[in-house]
Formats: sequence, structure tokens, C-alpha cells
Amino acid sequence: MLISIDGIDGCGKSTQVGLLAEHLGAQQIREISDSRWGRKLKSTPSPTLEEQLAWFLADRALLAPMLERASNSRKHHIVSDRSYLSTVAYQSFDSGLAPGMLERMNRALVPHYDLMFVLDLPVDLAMMRVRKRGEALTWCETEGRLTWARRVFEAWAAQHDNIVLVDATGTPETVFSLLRHQVDRSLRLP
Amino acid sequence: MLISIDGIDGCGKSTQVGLLAEHLGAQQIREISDSRWGRKLKSTPSPTLEEQLAWFLADRALLAPMLERASNSRKHHIVSDRSYLSTVAYQSFDSGLAPGMLERMNRALVPHYDLMFVLDLPVDLAMMRVRKRGEALTWCETEGRLTWARRVFEAWAAQHDNIVLVDATGTPETVFSLLRHQVDRSLRLP
Repeated sequence: MLISIDGIDGCGKSTQVGLLAEHLGAQQIREISDSRWGRKLKSTPSPTLEEQLAWFLADRALLAPMLERASNSRKHHIVSDRSYLSTVAYQSFDSGLAPGMLERMNRALVPHYDLMFVLDLPVDLAMMRVRKRGEALTWCETEGRLTWARRVFEAWAAQHDNIVLVDATGTPETVFSLLRHQVDRSLRLP
Repeated sequence: MLISIDGIDGCGKSTQVGLLAEHLGAQQIREISDSRWGRKLKSTPSPTLEEQLAWFLADRALLAPMLERASNSRKHHIVSDRSYLSTVAYQSFDSGLAPGMLERMNRALVPHYDLMFVLDLPVDLAMMRVRKRGEALTWCETEGRLTWARRVFEAWAAQHDNIVLVDATGTPETVFSLLRHQVDRSLRLP
């Protein structure tokens, strides 16, 4: 299966990606790869909107063959730390581009995701967690942007059967038990 | 040098690309390559706007390293049959995306083109030439789209020093002598 975990910054994605990958014996990937485009994206301090879009799409195009092998597979699993859903939520914030258009551009490149988890958290709680890390805030970690992103995630989850909103306010163990339940049901495990 | 030849359908691009590549001993490429994305673009009868954009960008990202070797080079030359300028002109027609935004997305991926020729032709003459080929018209060969594309090409040429509008109503020999003059001047040949 091809599974992704999205959500606003501070929602606890990385922890859950690790736990879920271990549970499934799955390959664990980051949505931004180590390609020339992924490296540009990570090394540019304030990319323009157009640079973000172009580099995300170019990097995702390179990931596509790998994602296709896992999509709909019963044996080979990938758990992705973020997916194109984050582009839909974040890059629609101040671009004038509709979330639906961003989704269609991305879906032209990547296959169907069997399960897309969105870890849902109130923005003030998320900002608190991000600040606690003690790292400098990045260009995408502003309250306005996170509020917008959360709303898009909610709207997308309401409209797509494969997108599951998960309450991420609990402990990592509680959150993981919610994810595991969904995944095992999808795999028809007891 | 990295040189491209754009223009609306029927303007005689392919002929001039061949002549110019021979003159320069240059590598001749088509803007849409034989990658998985290029093949999707060519084999899909009516791609959606989002598919066009995503596949063009993904394919262009793969061409980038090759283009970079020719850009600003005095020894290694590429003549490209179309460039991202055609995306700027054609994909802005009915998308709600500004030509400038499309340009910036593409320029995030590809290097500077030393010379970008636009073969300029009235739309009615271009449509007549296209019909004469006896092939079925493609999705992009409509009068409205070609009229829009021609205007964008004109506007872009007026605003960029490296974009040169060339009168394409003459014979192939006349048009080529105009191109050759520009190229030789850029290379500082007599």
C-alpha cells in the first residue's frame, strides 16, 4: 500500500511515520527526496511560490515510479512523510491557485494513495510544539498559513474516502493506535 | 549557446531548427523529450490543463542538465524546437494562469536561453499552412488559441533582450538568413 501522513507542522508526523513503517515493514520515505530539485527546495531559504511549485512537481515526478510500485500493492508498502496533499494545502495559501488545481497537477504525476492520514491539531497547539523544538521557524510556519492549511486538509478529508483525519492531540501511542486500526482494517488484518 | 525557436503552429519552426542546427554544428532537440512524461503528453489526445502543465514541467526538469551544458557556452550549442516560451504563450490561454507566473515556474527549472527566436506569422496564414499539411488539427491549433499565443510572444519579445521576433512570412531561405545574422552576431562571427 501507498500511505502518506500529512498535517500542519508540529502535528507529530515524523514519529507516526516511523511507528507505522515499523509496524508494516514498509519503506519509509520523505516526500522531498535527495534529487537536485529536492535539494534546491531544502537549501533555498525563501523560495518563491513558483520555485516551490516547480521544484515540488519536478521532485515528485522523479518519485513517481517508486510510488507506483507500492500503490494498490498487498505486499510492498511505502509510508511517506507528507504527500502532494501538503502542496494542495500550503501552496494554495497566497498563490491565487485553487487547491483543486494544485491537486490535479500533482495527480497527473503520482498514483493513487491507498491511505492518506492527516494528523489534525489546533493551530495554537501546533505552534507551541514547533516553538518548543527551539529551531528557527521556517517560511511555512506562520499562523495564517497553518490555519489555512488545516482548513484545506479538513475539506479534503471530508470529500475523499482515502483521506482520513486523525485527532493528533493525544500521546504518540494513542495517535498510533488510531492509525494502526485504519491500516489493519485496510489490509483486512484482525 | 542555448537557442530555441518558438512560434505558432505553421510558422516553419522545424525547417529553421534543422537549418540552424546544421549551420552551427549544434545538437538539435525537441522540447518534448522521449521521457515517460513527454510520451504521456504526446500520446494523450486531449490532456487537461493540469496534465499539460505537470507533464511539461516534469519533462523539462529532465532536460535541464542537458540545457545547462549549452547555456552560455561558446563551444557547445543546442537548437531546441520550441521552449518553455510556448508553455507561457499556449497554457495561459484558458487557464487563468498569468503568462508571467508560467514563465517563473519554468525558469525555476531551466537555465538562461542565449537566444529565443519567435517566428512571427499572421494567424490566418498559419492556419492555412497547418491545414495544407493534411493532418488532423490538434487540440492547440484553434484560431483563438493561436491569436492569444501570438500576442504573448509579441509582448514577451518586446520585454526581453534575448527574445527576437522574426518575420516568418518569407521563404525558408529568407527567414533563415535573418536567424543566421542574429546568431552569427551573438557569436561575433563576421
